[in-house]
Amino acid sequence: MEPNVQQTPERLAFYNKIDQQNMSALWNVMGALITPEPRSACQPSLWRFDAIRDYMLEAGALITAKEAERRVLILENPGLRGQSKITTSLYAGVQLVQPGEVAPAHRHSQSALRFVLEGKGAHTAVDGERTVMEPGDFVITPSFTWHDHGNSSSEPMFWLDGLDIPLVQFFDASFAEGLDEDEQPIKRAAGDSFARYGHNLLPVGLKRASKTSPVFNYPYQHTREALEVAKRQDEWDPCHGLKLRYTNPVTGDYAMPTIGTFIQLLPKGFSTSRYRSTDATVFVPIEGRGRTRVGDKVFEWGPKDIFIVPSWQWVTHEADEEAVMFSYSDRPVQEKLDLFREDRGNV
Amino acid sequence: MEPNVQQTPERLAFYNKIDQQNMSALWNVMGALITPEPRSACQPSLWRFDAIRDYMLEAGALITAKEAERRVLILENPGLRGQSKITTSLYAGVQLVQPGEVAPAHRHSQSALRFVLEGKGAHTAVDGERTVMEPGDFVITPSFTWHDHGNSSSEPMFWLDGLDIPLVQFFDASFAEGLDEDEQPIKRAAGDSFARYGHNLLPVGLKRASKTSPVFNYPYQHTREALEVAKRQDEWDPCHGLKLRYTNPVTGDYAMPTIGTFIQLLPKGFSTSRYRSTDATVFVPIEGRGRTRVGDKVFEWGPKDIFIVPSWQWVTHEADEEAVMFSYSDRPVQEKLDLFREDRGNV
Amino acid sequence: MEPNVQQTPERLAFYNKIDQQNMSALWNVMGALITPEPRSACQPSLWRFDAIRDYMLEAGALITAKEAERRVLILENPGLRGQSKITTSLYAGVQLVQPGEVAPAHRHSQSALRFVLEGKGAHTAVDGERTVMEPGDFVITPSFTWHDHGNSSSEPMFWLDGLDIPLVQFFDASFAEGLDEDEQPIKRAAGDSFARYGHNLLPVGLKRASKTSPVFNYPYQHTREALEVAKRQDEWDPCHGLKLRYTNPVTGDYAMPTIGTFIQLLPKGFSTSRYRSTDATVFVPIEGRGRTRVGDKVFEWGPKDIFIVPSWQWVTHEADEEAVMFSYSDRPVQEKLDLFREDRGNV
Amino acid sequence: MEPNVQQTPERLAFYNKIDQQNMSALWNVMGALITPEPRSACQPSLWRFDAIRDYMLEAGALITAKEAERRVLILENPGLRGQSKITTSLYAGVQLVQPGEVAPAHRHSQSALRFVLEGKGAHTAVDGERTVMEPGDFVITPSFTWHDHGNSSSEPMFWLDGLDIPLVQFFDASFAEGLDEDEQPIKRAAGDSFARYGHNLLPVGLKRASKTSPVFNYPYQHTREALEVAKRQDEWDPCHGLKLRYTNPVTGDYAMPTIGTFIQLLPKGFSTSRYRSTDATVFVPIEGRGRTRVGDKVFEWGPKDIFIVPSWQWVTHEADEEAVMFSYSDRPVQEKLDLFREDRGNV
Repeated sequence: MEPNVQQTPERLAFYNKIDQQNMSALWNVMGALITPEPRSACQPSLWRFDAIRDYMLEAGALITAKEAERRVLILENPGLRGQSKITTSLYAGVQLVQPGEVAPAHRHSQSALRFVLEGKGAHTAVDGERTVMEPGDFVITPSFTWHDHGNSSSEPMFWLDGLDIPLVQFFDASFAEGLDEDEQPIKRAAGDSFARYGHNLLPVGLKRASKTSPVFNYPYQHTREALEVAKRQDEWDPCHGLKLRYTNPVTGDYAMPTIGTFIQLLPKGFSTSRYRSTDATVFVPIEGRGRTRVGDKVFEWGPKDIFIVPSWQWVTHEADEEAVMFSYSDRPVQEKLDLFREDRGNV
Repeated sequence: MEPNVQQTPERLAFYNKIDQQNMSALWNVMGALITPEPRSACQPSLWRFDAIRDYMLEAGALITAKEAERRVLILENPGLRGQSKITTSLYAGVQLVQPGEVAPAHRHSQSALRFVLEGKGAHTAVDGERTVMEPGDFVITPSFTWHDHGNSSSEPMFWLDGLDIPLVQFFDASFAEGLDEDEQPIKRAAGDSFARYGHNLLPVGLKRASKTSPVFNYPYQHTREALEVAKRQDEWDPCHGLKLRYTNPVTGDYAMPTIGTFIQLLPKGFSTSRYRSTDATVFVPIEGRGRTRVGDKVFEWGPKDIFIVPSWQWVTHEADEEAVMFSYSDRPVQEKLDLFREDRGNV
Repeated sequence: MEPNVQQTPERLAFYNKIDQQNMSALWNVMGALITPEPRSACQPSLWRFDAIRDYMLEAGALITAKEAERRVLILENPGLRGQSKITTSLYAGVQLVQPGEVAPAHRHSQSALRFVLEGKGAHTAVDGERTVMEPGDFVITPSFTWHDHGNSSSEPMFWLDGLDIPLVQFFDASFAEGLDEDEQPIKRAAGDSFARYGHNLLPVGLKRASKTSPVFNYPYQHTREALEVAKRQDEWDPCHGLKLRYTNPVTGDYAMPTIGTFIQLLPKGFSTSRYRSTDATVFVPIEGRGRTRVGDKVFEWGPKDIFIVPSWQWVTHEADEEAVMFSYSDRPVQEKLDLFREDRGNV
Repeated sequence: MEPNVQQTPERLAFYNKIDQQNMSALWNVMGALITPEPRSACQPSLWRFDAIRDYMLEAGALITAKEAERRVLILENPGLRGQSKITTSLYAGVQLVQPGEVAPAHRHSQSALRFVLEGKGAHTAVDGERTVMEPGDFVITPSFTWHDHGNSSSEPMFWLDGLDIPLVQFFDASFAEGLDEDEQPIKRAAGDSFARYGHNLLPVGLKRASKTSPVFNYPYQHTREALEVAKRQDEWDPCHGLKLRYTNPVTGDYAMPTIGTFIQLLPKGFSTSRYRSTDATVFVPIEGRGRTRVGDKVFEWGPKDIFIVPSWQWVTHEADEEAVMFSYSDRPVQEKLDLFREDRGNV
């Protein structure tokens, strides 16, 4: 795939000529375009929550949620600086909403996930329904739905924002608009979506065009309970421990069409076998402590730290205490496009 | 569709002649085969649980679960006697397992649902996992999975069995076998399936060939909670009140490929608008009292009574108290075959 | 699955008592309902086209297509007489349209296939489009579409009608109506459907609710050409030779939701390995001669003969000349319901 | 979506500080990331085939197909120079294979389409089967299948290569390898795939993991015939004339998972209504002459010219002669991700 082409004066002259015509020679770039294995600028990296938290509080003193529209610090992959990306295709930021604040209503093509890190009692409203958020909750704001956030508790509220901003950019498909009012009108009772869609039941005759799950809050309490029961079975995947993906109950597919979201339990003392896959992944431990080796790097982590495993780099996890990790990647997209590959080592 | 054909001696002679060749004339039967609207032998009918219960206990004294293999009284539609059918395509029976009894392990092509009517503490084991059953629970034994039932409580346990026996018969596709032992070996912890599949989560990389839900017990507690929250929204379907279908979380489709199962709440005092559909339906109120008009008949019902609405007969429900009804029909099959039709009156 | 229950006077008295209540004891019938293998009344059988043809022409002299609405002789399975069935779930008849005749427009829930046996130049009109039929053509009239037939050629036209009449009956889902006029108005050019849907192309933005293929004539010329090229590969399935199923290009699924249709080539001298499956099948050789063993019976066949293989009976085919066979069964339904099974012997 | 944030010395200092931590403030970039409408660097552009042809022949004299591995000139979008992209997500190049040459066998994650522009008799081999190519043929080399090209005719052969190179790059999912030999061994007869999969028939029991169509050559003769018949219906879409998409007969979905391919007929004198959509599209007229307005630009085109319509720019076509245009875009991806939008003006 890397033709070894000698350059002659005639050839160089030719390249110059066609360059004027918006043309270039494939044989000079084919090796860079079509690589034998993924070659990504994305780097393994870790952000400590303690540090993020301090910066966020500092930001909280510098700007209001309203002025900022969203008071978020973007986590930028060190290999992709200036691009507002945490991996090549995905975005991550940490958002702070202070007591009494509102992040005003808007909507956009970009889909967002919120993974709650600290605080209780703030809410997200989506399409006329509010949900109150607690640590470990996974909340979705589907593509082009009105959403706003508010904090009526007495504590600052922190969560991780995961969005498909680079992906929507790549497809030149961004649309967005703001609402005249800060908060959208509430039309449905809290918990209505979860009651109708989240209990292995669906409304008779439901027709749904959206590919995003109508369950817009997957409460941690519920998820944790599932892990607690499933772990009794004492069957562990050598590469993942016990790893589940969040689903859209209407289709059984991923909860979001562009972002795969996962929850994973590693029992105390468990070490995973090496694994690699093409979906660069953002990990957020929510319970426990341990370490992860990615390529040549080793990250020690505890609750709410955030780290990245790039595409096709070998990864192993080791849990010193029973650990629960949330993660997200573009795996659903790669699967739909027949691009996803994984390698489970010699397991 | 009903040609008015005169019969002449020549024609009659011809019919006799072709009859010898295993042939017959379509024009003499077309009106009966292809009717302008469904014409079914299935009749509206109701069985009171109190009466069934008495007969069951009498049966309990006459035969053991082991001798009977399954101690079940079949509910036979009065229009379809001798065919072991409650509707044209479906079967219903009521099963009793006495304290200490076992209904031995077997498996068969026929899919079964259990809807628990009375008793606590009996279990069903399916494919190496046990579930303990309580009133209102909807339990599945998928096609060709090993299953056995036992009762280690001190009370008799009654449930409704709904099977696709007539349907499997119609397709000449019955297979069955018994196990040498009464009870199958237990390989998975109780609750494991519900933990892995019933929480809007699925194991990463799951491949599943079966079209039946891996959640094999849908506990009533969980279902009732969903109804309780959803009813706050105070939005009622004129024909159904609040009606949800049980789903297979792997696909979002019905929980079973051959039988649709539903749960429905009618608020106190609610009267539904008339409705008809092509899927003859078995109803089982589990809470509340009311009445249902089917064609010219009116059935007064209370908890655990069982009644039938045949295909394409107008039905209205009226609830004197807040009522919850379980129901099942062949709707998933009709939908897959483009045969399902419904008529919501003039709503 | 066949409990060996002793009958006592008390038990017999009990059976009588519950019989009054529309109830019966499962343990007395379970062995008949849930069999270890399919036990069908459907029998292997063959009808010679020559004989059918003679009877049809006789019928042609006795009744017009218009008086009969459809001048069809039903092929009744010898094990299922009086039920207008060729297998437990399907219907077959042979239809004759004489030159100048019209079989008037009607529509019904039942789906129909036409497989043309003899004659050229008759047409079927479906939903405003006409197709001219030739031997070997497979033509669909989808559920509840207007259809009429006419013969503007100078020869009698014979085709096999395959319908899902028993299946629609079983689901109590029959609807039908006639049109005031004999022939429906023509709104689309002949060949339009095949051009738009039959060339591995589909209209941009197509939304289609029906599960039936929009290609309503699969011309034999086209099908035969596919077989002719594919046979060069000289790869034969031991049980089937070269067997293809007709598809709905919109979904890749079977061409009709309720009936699977197949075309199959056996090279000269080929003998298949034994095979059995749960879908009772109607076979129609269109070219070649050979014999088929079904259970203990052997049928010698030539072009246009029609024979039946019931569910789960071993079948082998032997071709004396290169043979092409059309066939149909309820396999798509059984697959959708997780009921289909096949056994390829020890291949 | 564009918060108007005042920058203060404290804020600027804060930005500097977090920059060291691989963090940045969302409020400074949100307006650029989440735009109210697509803002793309991709520009409308046209390349004349005559010019391309001359450059290609010049390249033919400078380098052999074997030395170049693929002798291709990339068409680079003027707004995306240096990135080997014709739109933000797709690649286009023109390939020349001279008589007697071979472009050696390799395989890669990137999917490719070939749309034949000039010449007859060259072949593409894919997974052991060869197809001979003619002008207007649309040929697929699916992801990670071995493929090589050869020209045993006496004329140079030109085709357009459309690949998803930028997309595979964006997902960091490139794999590739070469074969030791120039040409792969041939295992299947020419035409076998089209016979088995391209005639509205599929092999019984087919299981297929790939999302790409098994029909790897869609011959223009076949496609043109479909257009010729369909145009008789004289029904035109105001925005598209008669536009069809190539399909994967196994699923009815697009022929390739990452690239949508289309064929479109405009009758003589037809002018389309304005239309815009989020999928930037590469157009290649193969018959006829006309002009296309994209935003403020107007392109006059004839056979084999190649032009680009970027995302969300208004486009109208006008045909001076009956015209047929091939086109491709990332529409299937956008549809799968719920990102696709179109605007049909006020039609």
